[in-house]
Amino acid sequence: MHFVDRLFSAIRRVQNPVVVGVDPRPDELPPGYLERFPANLEGVVAALGQFGRDLIDIVATRVAAVKFQSAFYEAYGPQGVAVLHASAEYAREKGLMVIFDGKRNDIGSTAEAYARGYLGKVPMGESFEPCWNLDALTINAYLGAEGIVPFVKVAARENKGLFVVVRTSNHSAGDFQDLVADGKPVYRHVAEHVKQWGQAYVGQEGYSLVGAVVGATYPAQLAELREAMPQTLFLVPGYGTQGGTSAEVAHAFASNGLGAVVNNSRGIAFAYGKAAYKARFGTNWQGAVEQALVDMIDDLAANTPAGRLRG
Amino acid sequence: MHFVDRLFSAIRRVQNPVVVGVDPRPDELPPGYLERFPANLEGVVAALGQFGRDLIDIVATRVAAVKFQSAFYEAYGPQGVAVLHASAEYAREKGLMVIFDGKRNDIGSTAEAYARGYLGKVPMGESFEPCWNLDALTINAYLGAEGIVPFVKVAARENKGLFVVVRTSNHSAGDFQDLVADGKPVYRHVAEHVKQWGQAYVGQEGYSLVGAVVGATYPAQLAELREAMPQTLFLVPGYGTQGGTSAEVAHAFASNGLGAVVNNSRGIAFAYGKAAYKARFGTNWQGAVEQALVDMIDDLAANTPAGRLRG
Repeated sequence: MHFVDRLFSAIRRVQNPVVVGVDPRPDELPPGYLERFPANLEGVVAALGQFGRDLIDIVATRVAAVKFQSAFYEAYGPQGVAVLHASAEYAREKGLMVIFDGKRNDIGSTAEAYARGYLGKVPMGESFEPCWNLDALTINAYLGAEGIVPFVKVAARENKGLFVVVRTSNHSAGDFQDLVADGKPVYRHVAEHVKQWGQAYVGQEGYSLVGAVVGATYPAQLAELREAMPQTLFLVPGYGTQGGTSAEVAHAFASNGLGAVVNNSRGIAFAYGKAAYKARFGTNWQGAVEQALVDMIDDLAANTPAGRLRG
Repeated sequence: MHFVDRLFSAIRRVQNPVVVGVDPRPDELPPGYLERFPANLEGVVAALGQFGRDLIDIVATRVAAVKFQSAFYEAYGPQGVAVLHASAEYAREKGLMVIFDGKRNDIGSTAEAYARGYLGKVPMGESFEPCWNLDALTINAYLGAEGIVPFVKVAARENKGLFVVVRTSNHSAGDFQDLVADGKPVYRHVAEHVKQWGQAYVGQEGYSLVGAVVGATYPAQLAELREAMPQTLFLVPGYGTQGGTSAEVAHAFASNGLGAVVNNSRGIAFAYGKAAYKARFGTNWQGAVEQALVDMIDDLAANTPAGRLRG
């Protein structure tokens, strides 16, 4: 089944568009967490793995997908990557779709190697075998079509998805993304190419497998892109910790409440550290996670078209 | 010692600016190579590791640095990354500097996690320990300053280097890089930021730790950027297989033959497959590697300022 059709089916089941980000920052793990493991490489990566499983256990029945930030695993080398691989497998076993946030980019057969590795099958002996078998990747388009089309071809063959970074949620996003060329900003040029790259790969739900990353913190641009790209699924970072509100995120959705997924990483995983949750849950970080997720789901339901998912 | 000072010292020793790319594409490994290993995941990654070591053994005394293309290892999951880690360690033991070509990009503490992981030290128990300890990374600037500055800070602290993708060597590079904003193309905007990001980190040799990736296949742009960025070290891909010639690459160098390193991956590693080398070396792929490397070094010495390195 087409990636977006699978994703929307899961979103309808859970009745919300939230993606929980699994970004195990060692310095933000709940108090006492690292101390349960040996103070060496094996111990740290074991802690990352345990935290990922614990987080997934809490959110698995409540959301459609999780997004892993590869950097926090890669930083610990092969052992860290092994924990990422196992965590992704664990998430899938729990029924979640898995987005790999690595913002990979390269051209030709190198791009194809990334795509085959993370989404498809790699050459192994006489055959091709899956290695990561994830559901979707974030990718960066600065290298142009030759850096995207190889990903699209593999994703199309494997019924997987892509999110091309179009407009990010950070303050300096505009350094290059907002430069105006031929009467429109660079991110609009990227958006037009994203439409083109994806137009042959639209599923039953009317969305292409080639999605876009569009930050929550620039609502006017979210609205403008939503209108310009009606067949493009948005992955929206920046809600919560980076300052994006549900009123802003609202612009990412089509009127039926579909068309976007909204990621929250630290705001859920590390909710225990926020004053409001700390007062209520103390050292019960899992309780804080559960409540922060419920609060986000309710906030989106009340203030965005995603409320229509509750039917 | 500053990254560029170390690199130039090594370049003066070997008297050439060549970087050998280690891109173990399974479908281009020498005939009979994969067959020496079991036809499963362990066998494939063992073959990638053996090929990397064999290639490094041939080139280690002749060049200053190798560049690993991460995609071909990552595609095989944690086992592939383990082989990349071991191969990088092997290269360093042989006296080579190691560039990790992963074109990573993200913001803030996520960018810092990549930088700490690959170039610096990561939190582990009570202390910070090196995990990859590589010499330099390629990174992508589409996310703006917040996506670059965290890398620069870590690299400065650790005496390591960076190469920001400015102008790539592929045909579609211009899709976004050549869009003209405020009277100049986007890649020139990126170039100016690269200068700014690097200006506080210039070594004894007059070059910043923040370098630039500038493709060999657009000589006019190479010349223009060389003039505009006199303190920026260039990593030049595209020589050979992608069509870049020594006459084109010549524009990347300062008049003293320094200021650029020229990468060649397939053109050296898989030289055995080219008609000229095949006729001469047959199944002796190592002989083809050695000859292709000597030919490239001689070509650059004859037709670029790098000839001055021979004194």
